Amino acid sequence: MTVTYSSKVANATFFGFHRLLLKWRGSIYKLLYREFIVFAVLYTAISLVYRLLLTGAQKRFFEKLSIYCDRYAEQIPVTFVLGFYVTLVVNRWWNQFVNLPWPDRLMFLISSSVHGSDQHGRLLRRTLMRYVNLTSLLIFRSVSTAVYKRFPTMDHVVEAGFMTADERKVFDHLKSPHLKYWVPFIWFGNLAAKARNEGRIRDSVDLQSLMTEMNRFRSWCSLLFGYDWVGIPLVYTQVVTLAVYTFFFACLIGRQFLDPSKGYAGHDLDLYIPIFTLLQFFFYAGWLKVAEQLINPFGEDDDDFETNWCIDRNLQVSLLAVDEMHMSLPKMKKDIYWD
Amino acid sequence: MTVTYSSKVANATFFGFHRLLLKWRGSIYKLLYREFIVFAVLYTAISLVYRLLLTGAQKRFFEKLSIYCDRYAEQIPVTFVLGFYVTLVVNRWWNQFVNLPWPDRLMFLISSSVHGSDQHGRLLRRTLMRYVNLTSLLIFRSVSTAVYKRFPTMDHVVEAGFMTADERKVFDHLKSPHLKYWVPFIWFGNLAAKARNEGRIRDSVDLQSLMTEMNRFRSWCSLLFGYDWVGIPLVYTQVVTLAVYTFFFACLIGRQFLDPSKGYAGHDLDLYIPIFTLLQFFFYAGWLKVAEQLINPFGEDDDDFETNWCIDRNLQVSLLAVDEMHMSLPKMKKDIYWD
Amino acid sequence: MTVTYSSKVANATFFGFHRLLLKWRGSIYKLLYREFIVFAVLYTAISLVYRLLLTGAQKRFFEKLSIYCDRYAEQIPVTFVLGFYVTLVVNRWWNQFVNLPWPDRLMFLISSSVHGSDQHGRLLRRTLMRYVNLTSLLIFRSVSTAVYKRFPTMDHVVEAGFMTADERKVFDHLKSPHLKYWVPFIWFGNLAAKARNEGRIRDSVDLQSLMTEMNRFRSWCSLLFGYDWVGIPLVYTQVVTLAVYTFFFACLIGRQFLDPSKGYAGHDLDLYIPIFTLLQFFFYAGWLKVAEQLINPFGEDDDDFETNWCIDRNLQVSLLAVDEMHMSLPKMKKDIYWD
Amino acid sequence: MTVTYSSKVANATFFGFHRLLLKWRGSIYKLLYREFIVFAVLYTAISLVYRLLLTGAQKRFFEKLSIYCDRYAEQIPVTFVLGFYVTLVVNRWWNQFVNLPWPDRLMFLISSSVHGSDQHGRLLRRTLMRYVNLTSLLIFRSVSTAVYKRFPTMDHVVEAGFMTADERKVFDHLKSPHLKYWVPFIWFGNLAAKARNEGRIRDSVDLQSLMTEMNRFRSWCSLLFGYDWVGIPLVYTQVVTLAVYTFFFACLIGRQFLDPSKGYAGHDLDLYIPIFTLLQFFFYAGWLKVAEQLINPFGEDDDDFETNWCIDRNLQVSLLAVDEMHMSLPKMKKDIYWD
Amino acid sequence: MTVTYSSKVANATFFGFHRLLLKWRGSIYKLLYREFIVFAVLYTAISLVYRLLLTGAQKRFFEKLSIYCDRYAEQIPVTFVLGFYVTLVVNRWWNQFVNLPWPDRLMFLISSSVHGSDQHGRLLRRTLMRYVNLTSLLIFRSVSTAVYKRFPTMDHVVEAGFMTADERKVFDHLKSPHLKYWVPFIWFGNLAAKARNEGRIRDSVDLQSLMTEMNRFRSWCSLLFGYDWVGIPLVYTQVVTLAVYTFFFACLIGRQFLDPSKGYAGHDLDLYIPIFTLLQFFFYAGWLKVAEQLINPFGEDDDDFETNWCIDRNLQVSLLAVDEMHMSLPKMKKDIYWD
Repeated sequence: MTVTYSSKVANATFFGFHRLLLKWRGSIYKLLYREFIVFAVLYTAISLVYRLLLTGAQKRFFEKLSIYCDRYAEQIPVTFVLGFYVTLVVNRWWNQFVNLPWPDRLMFLISSSVHGSDQHGRLLRRTLMRYVNLTSLLIFRSVSTAVYKRFPTMDHVVEAGFMTADERKVFDHLKSPHLKYWVPFIWFGNLAAKARNEGRIRDSVDLQSLMTEMNRFRSWCSLLFGYDWVGIPLVYTQVVTLAVYTFFFACLIGRQFLDPSKGYAGHDLDLYIPIFTLLQFFFYAGWLKVAEQLINPFGEDDDDFETNWCIDRNLQVSLLAVDEMHMSLPKMKKDIYWD
Repeated sequence: MTVTYSSKVANATFFGFHRLLLKWRGSIYKLLYREFIVFAVLYTAISLVYRLLLTGAQKRFFEKLSIYCDRYAEQIPVTFVLGFYVTLVVNRWWNQFVNLPWPDRLMFLISSSVHGSDQHGRLLRRTLMRYVNLTSLLIFRSVSTAVYKRFPTMDHVVEAGFMTADERKVFDHLKSPHLKYWVPFIWFGNLAAKARNEGRIRDSVDLQSLMTEMNRFRSWCSLLFGYDWVGIPLVYTQVVTLAVYTFFFACLIGRQFLDPSKGYAGHDLDLYIPIFTLLQFFFYAGWLKVAEQLINPFGEDDDDFETNWCIDRNLQVSLLAVDEMHMSLPKMKKDIYWD
Repeated sequence: MTVTYSSKVANATFFGFHRLLLKWRGSIYKLLYREFIVFAVLYTAISLVYRLLLTGAQKRFFEKLSIYCDRYAEQIPVTFVLGFYVTLVVNRWWNQFVNLPWPDRLMFLISSSVHGSDQHGRLLRRTLMRYVNLTSLLIFRSVSTAVYKRFPTMDHVVEAGFMTADERKVFDHLKSPHLKYWVPFIWFGNLAAKARNEGRIRDSVDLQSLMTEMNRFRSWCSLLFGYDWVGIPLVYTQVVTLAVYTFFFACLIGRQFLDPSKGYAGHDLDLYIPIFTLLQFFFYAGWLKVAEQLINPFGEDDDDFETNWCIDRNLQVSLLAVDEMHMSLPKMKKDIYWD
Repeated sequence: MTVTYSSKVANATFFGFHRLLLKWRGSIYKLLYREFIVFAVLYTAISLVYRLLLTGAQKRFFEKLSIYCDRYAEQIPVTFVLGFYVTLVVNRWWNQFVNLPWPDRLMFLISSSVHGSDQHGRLLRRTLMRYVNLTSLLIFRSVSTAVYKRFPTMDHVVEAGFMTADERKVFDHLKSPHLKYWVPFIWFGNLAAKARNEGRIRDSVDLQSLMTEMNRFRSWCSLLFGYDWVGIPLVYTQVVTLAVYTFFFACLIGRQFLDPSKGYAGHDLDLYIPIFTLLQFFFYAGWLKVAEQLINPFGEDDDDFETNWCIDRNLQVSLLAVDEMHMSLPKMKKDIYWD
Repeated sequence: MTVTYSSKVANATFFGFHRLLLKWRGSIYKLLYREFIVFAVLYTAISLVYRLLLTGAQKRFFEKLSIYCDRYAEQIPVTFVLGFYVTLVVNRWWNQFVNLPWPDRLMFLISSSVHGSDQHGRLLRRTLMRYVNLTSLLIFRSVSTAVYKRFPTMDHVVEAGFMTADERKVFDHLKSPHLKYWVPFIWFGNLAAKARNEGRIRDSVDLQSLMTEMNRFRSWCSLLFGYDWVGIPLVYTQVVTLAVYTFFFACLIGRQFLDPSKGYAGHDLDLYIPIFTLLQFFFYAGWLKVAEQLINPFGEDDDDFETNWCIDRNLQVSLLAVDEMHMSLPKMKKDIYWD
């Protein structure tokens, strides 16, 4: 579930963000504590080996190696590579959120443009609405692991009431080697055209208004699919990951406290705990975790979109809107500012 | 209230921006003076301990620690992390401003397309307009702490005249486990469709024009809601905050003036007041404050959007426009350039 | 007036941009020469004090202070802060330009869709067009200092022919505590609806086409207003200004030529004129000036938009287009490629 | 074929991205191993020459040269140049993906708005659909090397069924010195207008809806063409390439391990294998490879768009949708939430 | 003419971009060789003076000066200033390309919506199309130096067949102190309205569809004009140019090889040819050239848009489309996938 904290930062107050540092759900600590432990253990192990096991000559070699590693660690452009990469990932993530398919625009139009309060009219509106929800479900199934777990087969889709058994049969009989998520939209178009012929949709203006909105919904669906299908090129992700991992590998050796008595520049203090290196681990690994979390926002991370909730909400709300609420109106009364 | 200073910088003049440095409302000083005092006090305390309390050996250790901290303080990539993060926050903030729902476009259409100067016509236009304002109010309530304070319950919404008691009853009887801010739009659609049947709206072109505009309004509302619901991932905010806080923690120790007589490099001057470190505190903490202020622009900061004012303005103006001004026209006269 | 130099850089030639360095209007020199003089004078004063007035011990102290300042001057992240800030300002500036309200789209539609060459038809088209121009004038008045100077009161607006006296009266009698720039658009809508009833506008398709275009115009107007109302947060501007000013303050002391005979690192040359520091002054202060010029493009800077010219152009051209040119057509003749 | 790995990173897990480091298809290793071998061989060769062949004086000269190269290698701004350039390339690449022409929106409209289940009606819909597919094929031929290989001549286009022999003849007889990919769209417009006259398309609203959608399709096509025609300026690509190549050239000499006994700063360790330089090779050359892969996404790289697959899918799906599925509807039944 | 190289980089191959380094047209070498020669000559001259003409004391002074210059050269933030500036220029350049006015969308609509195969119908369509081409020509004349050279006066426009003599007369008689490029669009609107009255355009839906498309074309035109009129502020360009020029000026002195025997740090090698400085010249000056080329893409650079070609193509193709091809259709035949 998305971690919402905006109400906690509504006002900029005294050390306003420090409260955020104490959250656990969706936090940097929860995401990183395992990696942090591994890093700390490795660092300690190397430190112990250096301090206790190595002989004098080995120590000298290790010290040189450490200085060598430290020098190169600073040359690795982690900051910039991460800055550019995370910006890219964040933009993609937000675009995916903005393009989540919501049926609300369509349900307003269907409720006001597809007429008839009789059973056939109700069936018409509910079926149109159901096709819309079905398409988004089909897309979500191929995009989101959480939704796929819930609807592993088309049987589950039928059982959940998104599809009737008849529709299932027609759907399965269509021969195409390609994905068929667009099929319910053809049905939508055909059904709307039929309703227009029957006079349930009054004229072409109303019909085209519906079709335009449906096409907008389809574009959202296909864009989501596109984001899933064509991700950030693997090479880019690998470059960034390699840079960060290499940096920490170099730090493991290069940031060891060397024997102060040897007089190496910048090594006249032995604190045992490399506090700033550990903090750097949090910055950089945390920044990379931002990317890991957002690169596919349809998983089951704390910060991923709640697609299963969306699916339920959309079906419930849209059927309510086009059926029970069709042409229902509270009595019009003068508001309190009248005259 | 938003702090507007654009008229003060209309022309680029001699040291043009320096006047801005002397403002208090919405200024960096007002936002930061508390943190600044804490920082200065801590710095002074450490300085006094170093100068007065520590023994010789302890001083030597502190000096090494200070140099160690200073060295790492420079390695913390505060600038870049802040640069990328603030750019993200500023973009989100501006998009939220651009997507504030204004009913003006709808009120022009309602005034010109929903006919009838009799009481029923007036009621029709006022009710349509009220539904629009009601929806934006419902959204603002869940987005803005200031609006929520003013309208803590639906009773307050009814009392303020955005909803009639009847509407309240219908609204409450709708069974849905989900947010119901879309309900007034269904009423809007149904009412418009009814007006079309009664001939108050002339044809489908006028009707669809209204529906399109209403859907645009809804998109603004839902986008605002989306920005509130799905914020910048907590991890990102934590990474940035950690980096800045760590930097200043390191500065507290690392930027102390060490005994010049000891001959540490870069420490041959004791100024007592670390003027540049204090200025750096203003840059970096100020930059982070920009983010804190803008990350949720619906709070009560000096620079936050005046949502309560918007709500009042929109209701007043839109009712005025569709009722009193409906079909009112100044007498057409030749303008002074005629022939 | 905008400084246009694109024709001078149409082709990339030998040292192509050097010609731009010699321009005065809108140039970095014109904008900065006063600040530059102040900076140079201060630098010289400090230099003279150091060289002539200080005693030996004072000189030693000043030298240490100078080195201290120089060291911190390099740590101030002027480049990045300016880079991110100027990018933000430039984007806002360009968006303001792109959203300047031009009535051209509307005038094409009015000329072709509002029929009747008689006096009433002419009056209709001219009045519609005038309302459009009136709204943009009202917006410009509250956005641009130059326009406000020209039209300090509504009387000036009436005198300039944008409003008739009758309209003024109706406008003033509308009771609203809020800005009323939207009023002429209500009149526009009402007048268009009336023209539709009278058959001057043929059908709803033509009418809605006009209304859509009018709403687009309104969005431009309100976006301009929004840019003026909600500027870049003051804190951000202050952070940047502080960073730049601090940098130059640090340079005043830190970039002094110290006595070469004392053997300070990097101080074995006394050039008297700190050529690179002066050039740096031009880069950084010039970059900040870019922001100062563009942060409010409706002032009277060399590079600001010519809003007063726009207002005149729009009125003249749009009245010409909808009145004199209405239904005027050159005789259709075969073009020279016919067959 | 695009390399999809989003399902592997759905959840941010323990060292989440490390699994990506082990992929081969589309990976940095597959793309870079040849360059890496060349780099390693050259490095080794130089190393061997230095260690085994050079005389003492030559060694001294080489050592100075190496230090000189190392110093300048660090001054080459590879990171930034690459950061800005790759951001540009990635944006262009994604825009190309988003603008791939999909006929789905058109096929929904044609299926619901072009009536008649008889042979003429079927022919009409199929032909309209075929024209759309034909245009995108013509564009893809000039944009994608893979498609051009498959359809080297217009004969192949006719054979594949995208064009009939008659159409080919008409197409060839049109005299124009310019590309003729727009011709099928004129046919589309003419055919649609004819269908409107015959009553197969009911009214102008339906017709214009089709034409609007067709124009949208055309814009996608022409934008793709534009991206191919006007690439990133050659100079920019050359600047970046030169910077990266120069950097590695400087590294070949500057990152050699020099004789530790000579006491050069930073050269007190001889590891034989310059592990960090090799890793840097992977970062920077890998980053450049990202650009190489994406600068023309219509080639045959692992990560390029599967245009040939698109062409087949679009034809198959769109003919299926407008013909076999025209007016086909599953029986409407009450869904399981009815009442 | 645009330099297209995308087909050469379709696949990411072994050292894929190195082939681009060998191109001449539009290349960094062609653009920079003159500046490069100047730079090299100056460098050599200074070098010769230093080595041959200066006396001992003068040499010492020069050496100090050189070290001083080198130190400051590194402080000049060329990379960032260029990075931000070039990003801005490239974005503007691409937006200009995307907004080039193409008449294709209009010609499809005119061909299908303006009826009548008789001479009057043909004349109507051709004239409408010509007006569109005329407007874009008028805009191109004021934007592009290449087009202005070809059409220096309105006589040339008439001669080239874009305007008839009658139209010229009407055009010239319109009294307006402002640019009149919008006039043909008023004619377009009037002519279309007339055609609607005559029944050549069937109804308002078709007419408004044409007008909308025409307004879109106008927006492209006016945006191009806007880009030309309001360029990047002169100050910004001057800041960047100054920074780059200063950097190279500092390099001329600071990157000289000093006498190794004097033992200056980093000066123990005399290579005579400053290979890395020359390469840096290519990076930075090349990057600036990118900006010079793109800042006005309507000149006659190798990489500029071929506006004259566009003008010819658009006229030829659009007349062909609306006249010869009007209602021409290949015989409809079953495609090969039928059943």
